[in-house]
Amino acid sequence: MSKKVPDIIIGRLPQYLRVLGWLELEGKQTTASQELSERLGMSAAQIRKDLSQFGGFGKQGTGYSIPHLTKELRKILHVDHPWDVALVGVGQLGIAIAHYQGFQGRGFNIVLGFDSDPEKVGKKYGNIIVKPISEMESALKASGISVAMLTVPASEAQVIADRLVKAGIKAILNYAPINLTLPEHIKVRVIDPVIELQRMTYYL
Amino acid sequence: MSKKVPDIIIGRLPQYLRVLGWLELEGKQTTASQELSERLGMSAAQIRKDLSQFGGFGKQGTGYSIPHLTKELRKILHVDHPWDVALVGVGQLGIAIAHYQGFQGRGFNIVLGFDSDPEKVGKKYGNIIVKPISEMESALKASGISVAMLTVPASEAQVIADRLVKAGIKAILNYAPINLTLPEHIKVRVIDPVIELQRMTYYL
Repeated sequence: MSKKVPDIIIGRLPQYLRVLGWLELEGKQTTASQELSERLGMSAAQIRKDLSQFGGFGKQGTGYSIPHLTKELRKILHVDHPWDVALVGVGQLGIAIAHYQGFQGRGFNIVLGFDSDPEKVGKKYGNIIVKPISEMESALKASGISVAMLTVPASEAQVIADRLVKAGIKAILNYAPINLTLPEHIKVRVIDPVIELQRMTYYL
Repeated sequence: MSKKVPDIIIGRLPQYLRVLGWLELEGKQTTASQELSERLGMSAAQIRKDLSQFGGFGKQGTGYSIPHLTKELRKILHVDHPWDVALVGVGQLGIAIAHYQGFQGRGFNIVLGFDSDPEKVGKKYGNIIVKPISEMESALKASGISVAMLTVPASEAQVIADRLVKAGIKAILNYAPINLTLPEHIKVRVIDPVIELQRMTYYL
């Protein structure tokens, strides 16, 4: 594909992939835009249009092969091979993330964890043993990791994010409720429950 | 306002409100679309256009009053008064959410928590004392709460969500990595770190 796909479409592909994972778990082999539409609460036409951006995945009348579409979407999103991820900040939220089973099989392994609290260093959570944040740069560079989850307090988030970028991180999932100012080529996504809640209360 | 504002614009208003909160903390009284643009990584023209949907908040040349714009955005998003929220599922993620300070002053108070684990019932996390999930419907109805955060395992999420709807919940923030099938008038937003990560790896 040489044409640029709008970011808003890219943003929906992981949602399709997630639903496909569940349909597969339910033992299904094929699906249709109508079924995806019901699961996702978006129109079937939208789904067909999005998927057609990448060439035709479905055949008229037979729908989509779930294994095939899954494989293709994984390729498009570059999660056909898993990414190693660093977890920066191992407080209560960080611990919950370290133990979260939902990364498995969806393209991500948390392999490094850092915290500034000496009490935390050396402790094991999920698959990680917490390293001191003073070793963050050297450990990240040695590992070649390019994706990090940032779960430090808001007051520290910008400074730590700047350090992550210098250590070669290219994508940051930011849980701190502050907007990071980073070079344009760095990808940042935000997880903030308040933003999602406010987006719903508008309609209540 | 009688005209319908597109959902995509509504989705950006909480982001503006979040940045305004930080600018206020920094001691600023006024801001401009250019400053908001730099903090948010979106175009100043987009921000001006979004805000103009609700009438003019800024004056040419003097920018936006931060307290005024904050107040107006809170009104629009219906967070000028705080909402009581129920937390359903008090596992590691639920505990982290119960202790999270980021809800304060942004329109939400977690006042009820439920879990099916008898070991959890009666324990205090943040401001909540965990109640048995068997009492969920009666407690929700008595409280009149309409917003819930769902942090139960994926295998239980649909059943619990159905129960929440019957108990009067109108908006669910779903942390379980499964798509809920609910009546159309129920608002659902999803928090799934994998979706956000996949959205970034596409570009790496």
